[in-house]
Amino acid sequence: MVSEHIYKQYDSELEAVRAKVLEMGSLVEQQIVDALEALTTSNAKLAKRVINNDHQVNALEVQIDEDCSHIIALRQPAAGDLRMVLMMIKTITDLERIGDEAAKVARLALKSSETDRMWTPRFAEIKTMANLTREMLHMSLDAFARSDATKVLPIAQMDEQVDGQYQMTIRQLITFMLEDPRTISMSLEVLFVSKAIERIGDHAKNISEYVVYMVKGKDVRHTTIEQMEQDANS
Amino acid sequence: MVSEHIYKQYDSELEAVRAKVLEMGSLVEQQIVDALEALTTSNAKLAKRVINNDHQVNALEVQIDEDCSHIIALRQPAAGDLRMVLMMIKTITDLERIGDEAAKVARLALKSSETDRMWTPRFAEIKTMANLTREMLHMSLDAFARSDATKVLPIAQMDEQVDGQYQMTIRQLITFMLEDPRTISMSLEVLFVSKAIERIGDHAKNISEYVVYMVKGKDVRHTTIEQMEQDANS
Repeated sequence: MVSEHIYKQYDSELEAVRAKVLEMGSLVEQQIVDALEALTTSNAKLAKRVINNDHQVNALEVQIDEDCSHIIALRQPAAGDLRMVLMMIKTITDLERIGDEAAKVARLALKSSETDRMWTPRFAEIKTMANLTREMLHMSLDAFARSDATKVLPIAQMDEQVDGQYQMTIRQLITFMLEDPRTISMSLEVLFVSKAIERIGDHAKNISEYVVYMVKGKDVRHTTIEQMEQDANS
Repeated sequence: MVSEHIYKQYDSELEAVRAKVLEMGSLVEQQIVDALEALTTSNAKLAKRVINNDHQVNALEVQIDEDCSHIIALRQPAAGDLRMVLMMIKTITDLERIGDEAAKVARLALKSSETDRMWTPRFAEIKTMANLTREMLHMSLDAFARSDATKVLPIAQMDEQVDGQYQMTIRQLITFMLEDPRTISMSLEVLFVSKAIERIGDHAKNISEYVVYMVKGKDVRHTTIEQMEQDANS
Protein backbone atom coordinates (compact mmCIF):
# COMPACT_ATOMS: atom_id res chain seq x y z
CA MET A 1 0.00 0.00 0.00
CA VAL A 2 2.78 2.40 0.90
CA SER A 3 4.60 1.84 -2.38
CA GLU A 4 1.35 2.36 -4.28
CA HIS A 5 0.90 5.62 -2.43
CA ILE A 6 4.42 6.76 -3.36
CA TYR A 7 3.85 5.69 -6.92
CA LYS A 8 0.69 7.78 -7.19
CA GLN A 9 2.40 10.81 -5.69
CA TYR A 10 5.22 10.48 -8.21
CA ASP A 11 2.73 10.19 -11.05
CA SER A 12 0.91 13.32 -9.95
CA GLU A 13 4.22 15.21 -9.65
CA LEU A 14 5.15 14.25 -13.18
CA GLU A 15 1.68 15.18 -14.36
CA ALA A 16 1.95 18.58 -12.65
CA VAL A 17 5.24 19.39 -14.41
CA ARG A 18 3.81 18.21 -17.72
CA ALA A 19 0.85 20.56 -17.21
CA LYS A 20 3.24 23.42 -16.42
CA VAL A 21 5.16 22.83 -19.66
CA LEU A 22 1.89 22.96 -21.60
CA GLU A 23 0.94 26.14 -19.73
CA MET A 24 4.30 27.67 -20.65
CA GLY A 25 3.69 26.59 -24.25
CA SER A 26 0.27 28.26 -24.38
CA LEU A 27 1.68 31.43 -22.90
CA VAL A 28 4.47 31.52 -25.48
CA GLU A 29 1.99 30.86 -28.30
CA GLN A 30 -0.10 33.80 -27.10
CA GLN A 31 3.04 35.95 -26.97
CA ILE A 32 3.67 35.25 -30.67
CA VAL A 33 0.07 36.15 -31.57
CA ASP A 34 0.13 39.32 -29.49
CA ALA A 35 3.54 40.47 -30.75
CA LEU A 36 2.36 40.15 -34.35
CA GLU A 37 -0.92 41.87 -33.56
CA ALA A 38 0.99 44.72 -31.87
CA LEU A 39 3.22 45.03 -34.91
CA THR A 40 0.51 45.01 -37.57
CA THR A 41 -1.80 47.39 -35.69
CA SER A 42 0.90 49.64 -34.19
CA ASN A 43 -0.51 48.86 -30.77
CA ALA A 44 2.07 50.17 -28.28
CA LYS A 45 0.07 49.03 -25.25
CA LEU A 46 -0.10 45.45 -26.47
CA ALA A 47 3.61 45.53 -27.39
CA LYS A 48 4.44 46.61 -23.84
CA ARG A 49 2.31 43.79 -22.43
CA VAL A 50 4.23 41.22 -24.49
CA ILE A 51 7.55 42.68 -23.30
CA ASN A 52 6.40 42.54 -19.66
CA ASN A 53 5.00 39.02 -19.95
CA ASP A 54 8.41 37.73 -20.96
CA HIS A 55 9.36 37.63 -17.26
CA GLN A 56 6.53 35.14 -16.73
CA VAL A 57 7.93 32.90 -19.46
CA ASN A 58 11.40 33.07 -17.90
CA ALA A 59 10.04 32.35 -14.43
CA LEU A 60 8.23 29.27 -15.71
CA GLU A 61 11.46 28.02 -17.28
CA VAL A 62 13.36 28.30 -13.99
CA GLN A 63 10.47 26.68 -12.05
CA ILE A 64 10.05 23.74 -14.42
CA ASP A 65 13.79 23.17 -14.49
CA GLU A 66 13.79 22.94 -10.70
CA ASP A 67 10.81 20.59 -10.72
CA CYS A 68 12.54 18.33 -13.24
CA SER A 69 15.81 18.14 -11.24
CA HIS A 70 13.74 17.44 -8.15
CA ILE A 71 11.94 14.53 -9.84
CA ILE A 72 15.17 13.05 -11.17
CA ALA A 73 16.92 13.35 -7.80
CA LEU A 74 14.11 12.05 -5.59
CA ARG A 75 12.06 9.78 -7.85
CA GLN A 76 14.75 8.32 -10.08
CA PRO A 77 12.45 7.91 -13.07
CA ALA A 78 13.33 5.21 -15.59
CA ALA A 79 12.73 4.54 -19.29
CA GLY A 80 9.79 6.51 -20.70
CA ASP A 81 9.38 8.69 -17.62
CA LEU A 82 13.03 9.69 -17.66
CA ARG A 83 12.81 10.46 -21.36
CA MET A 84 9.81 12.66 -20.67
CA VAL A 85 11.66 14.59 -17.96
CA LEU A 86 14.74 15.07 -20.16
CA MET A 87 12.48 16.06 -23.05
CA MET A 88 10.81 18.71 -20.88
CA ILE A 89 14.19 20.10 -19.76
CA LYS A 90 15.09 20.64 -23.41
CA THR A 91 11.65 21.83 -24.50
CA ILE A 92 11.50 24.68 -22.00
CA THR A 93 14.83 26.06 -23.27
CA ASP A 94 13.31 26.31 -26.75
CA LEU A 95 10.06 27.75 -25.38
CA GLU A 96 12.01 30.38 -23.49
CA ARG A 97 13.92 31.33 -26.64
CA ILE A 98 10.66 31.54 -28.62
CA GLY A 99 9.49 33.89 -25.87
CA ASP A 100 12.65 35.98 -26.41
CA GLU A 101 11.94 36.20 -30.13
CA ALA A 102 8.32 37.26 -29.49
CA ALA A 103 9.59 39.95 -27.11
CA LYS A 104 12.04 41.08 -29.79
CA VAL A 105 9.18 41.47 -32.28
CA ALA A 106 7.22 43.38 -29.62
CA ARG A 107 10.15 45.77 -29.05
CA LEU A 108 10.32 46.43 -32.80
CA ALA A 109 6.52 46.95 -32.78
CA LEU A 110 6.88 49.46 -29.96
CA LYS A 111 9.65 51.31 -31.78
CA SER A 112 7.69 51.42 -35.03
CA SER A 113 4.53 52.60 -33.22
CA GLU A 114 6.56 55.55 -31.93
CA THR A 115 8.12 56.51 -35.24
CA ASP A 116 4.89 56.19 -37.18
CA ARG A 117 6.54 54.27 -39.98
CA MET A 118 4.77 52.59 -42.86
CA TRP A 119 5.01 48.86 -42.20
CA THR A 120 2.21 47.78 -44.48
CA PRO A 121 4.04 46.60 -47.62
CA ARG A 122 5.63 43.49 -46.07
CA PHE A 123 2.81 42.52 -43.75
CA ALA A 124 1.24 39.80 -45.84
CA GLU A 125 4.39 37.68 -46.04
CA ILE A 126 5.25 38.19 -42.38
CA LYS A 127 1.75 37.22 -41.28
CA THR A 128 1.87 34.03 -43.38
CA MET A 129 5.25 33.10 -41.91
CA ALA A 130 4.12 33.89 -38.38
CA ASN A 131 0.93 31.85 -38.71
CA LEU A 132 2.93 28.94 -40.02
CA THR A 133 5.42 28.98 -37.15
CA ARG A 134 2.67 29.37 -34.58
CA GLU A 135 0.92 26.37 -36.10
CA MET A 136 4.22 24.44 -35.90
CA LEU A 137 4.53 25.26 -32.22
CA HIS A 138 0.91 24.33 -31.58
CA MET A 139 1.31 20.99 -33.33
CA SER A 140 4.53 20.21 -31.41
CA LEU A 141 2.85 20.94 -28.08
CA ASP A 142 -0.20 18.95 -29.11
CA ALA A 143 2.00 15.98 -30.02
CA PHE A 144 3.69 16.33 -26.62
CA ALA A 145 0.32 16.48 -24.82
CA ARG A 146 -0.86 13.32 -26.60
CA SER A 147 2.54 11.56 -26.68
CA ASP A 148 1.92 11.07 -30.38
CA ALA A 149 5.07 11.09 -32.52
CA THR A 150 3.16 10.79 -35.79
CA LYS A 151 1.65 14.22 -35.20
CA VAL A 152 5.00 15.94 -35.67
CA LEU A 153 5.66 14.66 -39.17
CA PRO A 154 4.41 17.67 -41.14
CA ILE A 155 6.47 20.03 -38.97
CA ALA A 156 9.82 19.45 -40.69
CA GLN A 157 8.21 20.23 -44.03
CA MET A 158 6.56 23.34 -42.62
CA ASP A 159 9.97 24.47 -41.37
CA GLU A 160 11.36 24.18 -44.90
CA GLN A 161 8.45 26.29 -46.10
CA VAL A 162 9.23 28.93 -43.47
CA ASP A 163 12.91 28.96 -44.45
CA GLY A 164 11.92 29.37 -48.10
CA GLN A 165 9.63 32.27 -47.28
CA TYR A 166 12.35 33.86 -45.19
CA GLN A 167 14.85 33.67 -48.06
CA MET A 168 12.24 35.13 -50.41
CA THR A 169 11.54 37.98 -48.00
CA ILE A 170 15.25 38.82 -47.86
CA ARG A 171 15.47 38.91 -51.65
CA GLN A 172 12.37 41.13 -51.86
CA LEU A 173 13.78 43.46 -49.22
CA ILE A 174 17.00 43.84 -51.19
CA THR A 175 15.03 44.81 -54.31
CA PHE A 176 12.94 47.17 -52.21
CA MET A 177 16.01 48.89 -50.73
CA LEU A 178 17.72 49.18 -54.11
CA GLU A 179 14.63 50.80 -55.64
CA ASP A 180 14.27 53.29 -52.81
CA PRO A 181 17.21 53.65 -50.40
CA ARG A 182 15.02 55.71 -48.05
CA THR A 183 13.38 52.42 -47.07
CA ILE A 184 16.65 50.91 -45.83
CA SER A 185 16.08 51.40 -42.09
CA MET A 186 12.52 50.15 -42.27
CA SER A 187 13.51 47.20 -44.45
CA LEU A 188 16.10 46.14 -41.91
CA GLU A 189 13.44 46.15 -39.22
CA VAL A 190 11.21 43.98 -41.40
CA LEU A 191 14.25 41.73 -41.85
CA PHE A 192 14.75 41.45 -38.08
CA VAL A 193 11.10 40.56 -37.59
CA SER A 194 11.32 37.91 -40.33
CA LYS A 195 14.48 36.52 -38.75
CA ALA A 196 12.77 36.31 -35.36
CA ILE A 197 9.84 34.42 -36.89
CA GLU A 198 12.15 32.10 -38.80
CA ARG A 199 13.90 31.24 -35.54
CA ILE A 200 10.58 30.53 -33.85
CA GLY A 201 10.07 27.91 -36.55
CA ASP A 202 13.46 26.36 -35.77
CA HIS A 203 12.63 26.12 -32.07
CA ALA A 204 9.19 24.61 -32.78
CA LYS A 205 10.91 22.02 -34.97
CA ASN A 206 13.38 21.24 -32.15
CA ILE A 207 10.46 20.59 -29.79
CA SER A 208 8.86 18.26 -32.34
CA GLU A 209 12.12 16.27 -32.46
CA TYR A 210 12.17 15.94 -28.68
CA VAL A 211 8.62 14.52 -28.86
CA VAL A 212 9.84 11.74 -31.15
CA TYR A 213 12.70 11.06 -28.71
CA MET A 214 10.27 10.96 -25.79
CA VAL A 215 7.78 8.63 -27.47
CA LYS A 216 10.11 6.44 -29.53
CA GLY A 217 13.39 6.73 -27.65
CA LYS A 218 15.12 7.72 -30.87
CA ASP A 219 17.17 10.84 -31.40
CA VAL A 220 16.01 12.24 -34.75
CA ARG A 221 17.94 15.49 -34.61
CA HIS A 222 20.36 16.02 -37.48
CA THR A 223 18.61 13.38 -39.61
CA THR A 224 16.66 13.68 -42.83
CA ILE A 225 12.90 14.13 -43.07
CA GLU A 226 12.63 10.61 -44.54
CA GLN A 227 14.51 9.09 -41.61
CA MET A 228 12.36 11.01 -39.17
CA GLU A 229 9.17 9.73 -40.82
CA GLN A 230 10.42 6.18 -40.50
CA ASP A 231 11.28 6.64 -36.83
CA ALA A 232 8.03 8.37 -35.92
CA ASN A 233 5.93 5.73 -37.64
CA SER A 234 7.89 2.68 -36.56
CA MET B 1 34.85 -3.61 -2.08
CA VAL B 2 32.17 -4.19 -4.66
CA SER B 3 30.50 -0.88 -3.92
CA GLU B 4 33.83 0.89 -4.13
CA HIS B 5 34.40 -0.71 -7.49
CA ILE B 6 30.99 0.50 -8.74
CA TYR B 7 31.69 3.93 -7.36
CA LYS B 8 34.97 4.17 -9.25
CA GLN B 9 33.38 3.02 -12.47
CA TYR B 10 30.66 5.65 -12.09
CA ASP B 11 33.27 8.31 -11.45
CA SER B 12 35.20 7.39 -14.55
CA GLU B 13 32.00 7.38 -16.63
CA LEU B 14 31.18 10.88 -15.44
CA GLU B 15 34.77 11.94 -16.11
CA ALA B 16 34.59 10.50 -19.63
CA VAL B 17 31.44 12.50 -20.47
CA ARG B 18 32.95 15.62 -18.99
CA ALA B 19 36.03 15.14 -21.20
CA LYS B 20 33.75 14.69 -24.22
CA VAL B 21 31.96 17.98 -23.48
CA LEU B 22 35.32 19.74 -23.30
CA GLU B 23 36.35 18.06 -26.55
CA MET B 24 33.13 19.27 -28.19
CA GLY B 25 33.85 22.75 -26.79
CA SER B 26 37.35 22.82 -28.28
CA LEU B 27 36.04 21.64 -31.64
CA VAL B 28 33.40 24.37 -31.66
CA GLU B 29 35.98 26.99 -30.65
CA GLN B 30 38.15 25.90 -33.57
CA GLN B 31 35.12 26.09 -35.88
CA ILE B 32 34.65 29.77 -34.93
CA VAL B 33 38.33 30.54 -35.57
CA ASP B 34 38.36 28.70 -38.91
CA ALA B 35 35.06 30.22 -40.11
CA LEU B 36 36.40 33.72 -39.46
CA GLU B 37 39.73 32.88 -41.07
CA ALA B 38 37.89 31.52 -44.12
CA LEU B 39 35.84 34.69 -44.33
CA THR B 40 38.65 37.19 -43.98
CA THR B 41 41.02 35.38 -46.35
CA SER B 42 38.36 34.18 -48.86
CA ASN B 43 39.57 30.64 -48.26
CA ALA B 44 36.95 28.40 -49.88
CA LYS B 45 38.73 25.20 -48.87
CA LEU B 46 38.76 26.14 -45.21
CA ALA B 47 35.12 27.26 -45.42
CA LYS B 48 34.17 23.84 -46.79
CA ARG B 49 36.06 22.12 -43.99
CA VAL B 50 34.12 24.08 -41.38
CA ILE B 51 30.83 23.18 -43.09
CA ASN B 52 31.78 19.49 -43.17
CA ASN B 53 33.00 19.45 -39.56
CA ASP B 54 29.57 20.54 -38.39
CA HIS B 55 28.46 16.88 -38.60
CA GLN B 56 31.09 16.03 -36.03
CA VAL B 57 29.73 18.65 -33.67
CA ASN B 58 26.20 17.29 -34.14
CA ALA B 59 27.34 13.71 -33.62
CA LEU B 60 29.05 14.67 -30.36
CA GLU B 61 25.84 16.32 -29.15
CA VAL B 62 23.80 13.16 -29.77
CA GLN B 63 26.49 10.95 -28.17
CA ILE B 64 26.89 13.06 -25.04
CA ASP B 65 23.13 13.30 -24.66
CA GLU B 66 22.92 9.52 -24.71
CA ASP B 67 25.77 9.20 -22.22
CA CYS B 68 24.05 11.62 -19.86
CA SER B 69 20.68 9.79 -20.00
CA HIS B 70 22.56 6.56 -19.42
CA ILE B 71 24.28 7.92 -16.32
CA ILE B 72 21.04 9.31 -14.90
CA ALA B 73 19.14 6.07 -15.55
CA LEU B 74 21.77 3.63 -14.27
CA ARG B 75 23.80 5.59 -11.76
CA GLN B 76 21.17 7.84 -10.24
CA PRO B 77 23.57 10.67 -9.50
CA ALA B 78 22.68 13.03 -6.66
CA ALA B 79 23.42 16.63 -5.67
CA GLY B 80 26.52 18.03 -7.38
CA ASP B 81 26.91 15.10 -9.78
CA LEU B 82 23.31 15.42 -10.94
CA ARG B 83 23.75 19.15 -11.42
CA MET B 84 26.84 18.46 -13.51
CA VAL B 85 24.96 16.01 -15.74
CA LEU B 86 22.03 18.40 -16.19
CA MET B 87 24.48 21.23 -16.85
CA MET B 88 26.17 19.16 -19.57
CA ILE B 89 22.82 18.34 -21.20
CA LYS B 90 22.13 22.06 -21.51
CA THR B 91 25.68 23.05 -22.44
CA ILE B 92 25.86 20.76 -25.47
CA THR B 93 22.67 22.32 -26.90
CA ASP B 94 24.36 25.71 -26.83
CA LEU B 95 27.63 24.28 -28.18
CA GLU B 96 25.71 22.69 -31.05
CA ARG B 97 24.02 26.02 -31.85
CA ILE B 98 27.38 27.82 -31.75
CA GLY B 99 28.53 25.19 -34.25
CA ASP B 100 25.53 26.06 -36.44
CA GLU B 101 26.42 29.75 -36.35
CA ALA B 102 30.05 28.99 -37.27
CA ALA B 103 28.83 26.88 -40.19
CA LYS B 104 26.56 29.77 -41.22
CA VAL B 105 29.56 32.12 -41.29
CA ALA B 106 31.50 29.51 -43.29
CA ARG B 107 28.68 29.28 -45.86
CA LEU B 108 28.74 33.07 -46.25
CA ALA B 109 32.53 32.88 -46.58
CA LEU B 110 32.19 30.28 -49.30
CA LYS B 111 29.61 32.37 -51.14
CA SER B 112 31.74 35.50 -50.92
CA SER B 113 34.86 33.63 -52.07
CA GLU B 114 32.94 32.66 -55.21
CA THR B 115 31.59 36.13 -55.99
CA ASP B 116 34.90 37.85 -55.35
CA ARG B 117 33.27 40.58 -53.31
CA MET B 118 35.09 43.23 -51.33
CA TRP B 119 34.61 42.31 -47.67
CA THR B 120 37.48 44.34 -46.31
CA PRO B 121 35.73 47.47 -44.98
CA ARG B 122 33.89 45.80 -42.08
CA PHE B 123 36.54 43.27 -41.13
CA ALA B 124 38.08 45.09 -38.20
CA GLU B 125 34.81 45.30 -36.22
CA ILE B 126 33.81 41.74 -37.05
CA LYS B 127 37.19 40.38 -35.98
CA THR B 128 37.01 42.25 -32.67
CA MET B 129 33.52 40.88 -32.02
CA ALA B 130 34.51 37.35 -33.02
CA ASN B 131 37.61 37.38 -30.80
CA LEU B 132 35.51 38.59 -27.89
CA THR B 133 32.89 35.84 -28.29
CA ARG B 134 35.53 33.17 -28.72
CA GLU B 135 37.18 34.39 -25.54
CA MET B 136 33.79 34.21 -23.80
CA LEU B 137 33.34 30.61 -24.91
CA HIS B 138 36.87 29.72 -23.85
CA MET B 139 36.37 31.25 -20.41
CA SER B 140 33.03 29.42 -19.94
CA LEU B 141 34.59 26.08 -20.83
CA ASP B 142 37.57 26.80 -18.61
CA ALA B 143 35.25 27.62 -15.71
CA PHE B 144 33.43 24.34 -16.39
CA ALA B 145 36.71 22.38 -16.52
CA ARG B 146 37.82 23.86 -13.18
CA SER B 147 34.34 23.98 -11.59
CA ASP B 148 35.10 27.60 -10.78
CA ALA B 149 32.06 29.90 -10.80
CA THR B 150 34.09 33.05 -10.16
CA LYS B 151 35.76 32.63 -13.54
CA VAL B 152 32.52 33.39 -15.39
CA LEU B 153 31.96 36.83 -13.88
CA PRO B 154 33.48 38.94 -16.68
CA ILE B 155 31.44 37.05 -19.30
CA ALA B 156 28.15 38.90 -18.75
CA GLN B 157 29.96 42.22 -19.18
CA MET B 158 31.70 40.96 -22.30
CA ASP B 159 28.31 39.96 -23.71
CA GLU B 160 27.07 43.52 -23.21
CA GLN B 161 30.14 44.72 -25.07
CA VAL B 162 29.39 42.34 -27.95
CA ASP B 163 25.76 43.51 -28.08
CA GLY B 164 26.95 47.12 -28.16
CA GLN B 165 29.35 46.41 -31.00
CA TYR B 166 26.64 44.57 -32.88
CA GLN B 167 24.27 47.56 -32.60
CA MET B 168 27.05 49.87 -33.74
CA THR B 169 27.80 47.64 -36.73
CA ILE B 170 24.12 47.77 -37.77
CA ARG B 171 24.11 51.57 -37.59
CA GLN B 172 27.31 51.75 -39.61
CA LEU B 173 25.92 49.38 -42.21
CA ILE B 174 22.81 51.54 -42.62
CA THR B 175 24.98 54.61 -43.25
CA PHE B 176 27.09 52.60 -45.65
CA MET B 177 24.07 51.40 -47.63
CA LEU B 178 22.53 54.87 -47.74
CA GLU B 179 25.76 56.33 -49.08
CA ASP B 180 26.12 53.69 -51.76
CA PRO B 181 23.10 51.46 -52.46
CA ARG B 182 25.29 49.16 -54.56
CA THR B 183 26.71 47.88 -51.28
CA ILE B 184 23.30 46.68 -50.03
CA SER B 185 23.72 42.97 -50.78
CA MET B 186 27.22 42.86 -49.34
CA SER B 187 26.18 44.88 -46.30
CA LEU B 188 23.39 42.40 -45.55
CA GLU B 189 25.92 39.59 -45.63
CA VAL B 190 28.12 41.48 -43.19
CA LEU B 191 25.00 41.93 -41.09
CA PHE B 192 24.30 38.17 -41.10
CA VAL B 193 27.87 37.43 -40.06
CA SER B 194 27.65 39.99 -37.24
CA LYS B 195 24.34 38.50 -36.12
CA ALA B 196 25.86 34.99 -36.08
CA ILE B 197 28.75 36.22 -33.94
CA GLU B 198 26.43 38.09 -31.60
CA ARG B 199 24.48 34.86 -31.07
CA ILE B 200 27.68 32.94 -30.34
CA GLY B 201 28.18 35.43 -27.50
CA ASP B 202 24.67 34.70 -26.19
CA HIS B 203 25.30 30.95 -26.18
CA ALA B 204 28.68 31.36 -24.45
CA LYS B 205 26.93 33.45 -21.79
CA ASN B 206 24.30 30.72 -21.36
CA ILE B 207 27.05 28.17 -20.74
CA SER B 208 28.64 30.45 -18.14
CA GLU B 209 25.30 30.59 -16.32
CA TYR B 210 25.05 26.80 -16.28
CA VAL B 211 28.53 26.68 -14.68
CA VAL B 212 27.27 28.83 -11.80
CA TYR B 213 24.26 26.51 -11.44
CA MET B 214 26.53 23.46 -11.44
CA VAL B 215 28.97 24.83 -8.87
CA LYS B 216 26.64 26.83 -6.65
CA GLY B 217 23.28 25.17 -7.23
CA LYS B 218 21.78 28.56 -8.05
CA ASP B 219 19.94 29.41 -11.22
CA VAL B 220 21.32 32.78 -12.31
CA ARG B 221 19.55 32.99 -15.65
CA HIS B 222 17.30 36.01 -16.06
CA THR B 223 18.99 37.83 -13.19
CA THR B 224 21.10 40.98 -13.15
CA ILE B 225 24.90 41.05 -13.41
CA GLU B 226 25.05 42.26 -9.78
CA GLN B 227 22.96 39.32 -8.57
CA MET B 228 25.09 36.90 -10.55
CA GLU B 229 28.28 38.30 -9.00
CA GLN B 230 26.82 37.80 -5.55
CA ASP B 231 25.81 34.20 -6.32
CA ALA B 232 29.11 33.26 -7.95
CA ASN B 233 31.15 34.67 -5.08
CA SER B 234 28.98 33.48 -2.21
